Amino acid sequence: MRVLGIDPGLTRCGLGMVDGVPGRKPFVLAVDVLRTSPHEETGVRLAALEATFEEWVQRYRPSVVAVERVFAQHNVGTVMGTAQAAGIALLVAARHGIPAALHTPSEVKAAITGSGRAGKDQVGAMVARILQLTEVPKPADAADALALAICHVWRGSSTDRLDQAQQSASSVAARQQRAYAQAATQARTKGARA
Amino acid sequence: MRVLGIDPGLTRCGLGMVDGVPGRKPFVLAVDVLRTSPHEETGVRLAALEATFEEWVQRYRPSVVAVERVFAQHNVGTVMGTAQAAGIALLVAARHGIPAALHTPSEVKAAITGSGRAGKDQVGAMVARILQLTEVPKPADAADALALAICHVWRGSSTDRLDQAQQSASSVAARQQRAYAQAATQARTKGARA
Repeated sequence: MRVLGIDPGLTRCGLGMVDGVPGRKPFVLAVDVLRTSPHEETGVRLAALEATFEEWVQRYRPSVVAVERVFAQHNVGTVMGTAQAAGIALLVAARHGIPAALHTPSEVKAAITGSGRAGKDQVGAMVARILQLTEVPKPADAADALALAICHVWRGSSTDRLDQAQQSASSVAARQQRAYAQAATQARTKGARA
Repeated sequence: MRVLGIDPGLTRCGLGMVDGVPGRKPFVLAVDVLRTSPHEETGVRLAALEATFEEWVQRYRPSVVAVERVFAQHNVGTVMGTAQAAGIALLVAARHGIPAALHTPSEVKAAITGSGRAGKDQVGAMVARILQLTEVPKPADAADALALAICHVWRGSSTDRLDQAQQSASSVAARQQRAYAQAATQARTKGARA
């Protein structure tokens, strides 16, 4: 299973690409943090994210995109941009027929450290240990993106769960591709009516 | 000035295309409401919105896209989808170098009815009167999208304001196109680093 983990954000967006096989240590293929300037228009910032997600999806062909689930209650100041960045990740995944999974921050922390209340430092240290990295990935958005990807690999790692996930992933992918083709056709044929 | 007004939403997204000249009654070119099913994946729903926004932008070539400003405090249940739908509108506008403007619901209500606290019915009735329609556009999302577009035309309708808006619109468009080209190039050349 190859998972693209995305810690969504406009100012800093973490991306981590991880290969995982049940029962073995996951392997990191790539990690980066994309920054966009708050002085740019939101649409331009979202377009920069779109270009980067496209680049990573086309280069690494992940089988799943795992995105942090954003809650409206948290961080009212930045939640809109975070939601929009997550939306672009889901859009790019759907465009390629790749199933997307959402994981909450506490699910990720629990999967990585054993505690849903672990701090950023603990998560970073465990990500480095799990992936056998010599340094903790910085900034925290990079470590969080890798943690998301590892969380997704591990949550599907028991044989039953993996079978279920693969079945549901392939049916989701097929349904997504059908729905996307249908939506595009509808938009073309229906168009605008005065 | 040709304005595409977008009342963003995942379940129902209003679109209204209006031509306006300062001091004259605006004219409606197209109005529609796009619905996407809550049973589909979010990414697929966003892709349907993207396809429709692309269709409208390519067909009508608006000079501005006016989007309702979403607040994190309101409607916690639907705000994430609304923010993501608005993000797709901003993305498509940036992609075509079209300046995007955000207007709050109370700005729109005040511009259309004279009161920032007007109800849906009042807004719909005034939209129908302004555009000389025989019926109030239904559902409310359709009327709201037209109201947004009219609001944008009128807020730029004094000569000074219009000059300013045009100047700033063209510089924003130029800056957006530069920034988008730059971001795309960066994404291509920089790529993913392990």
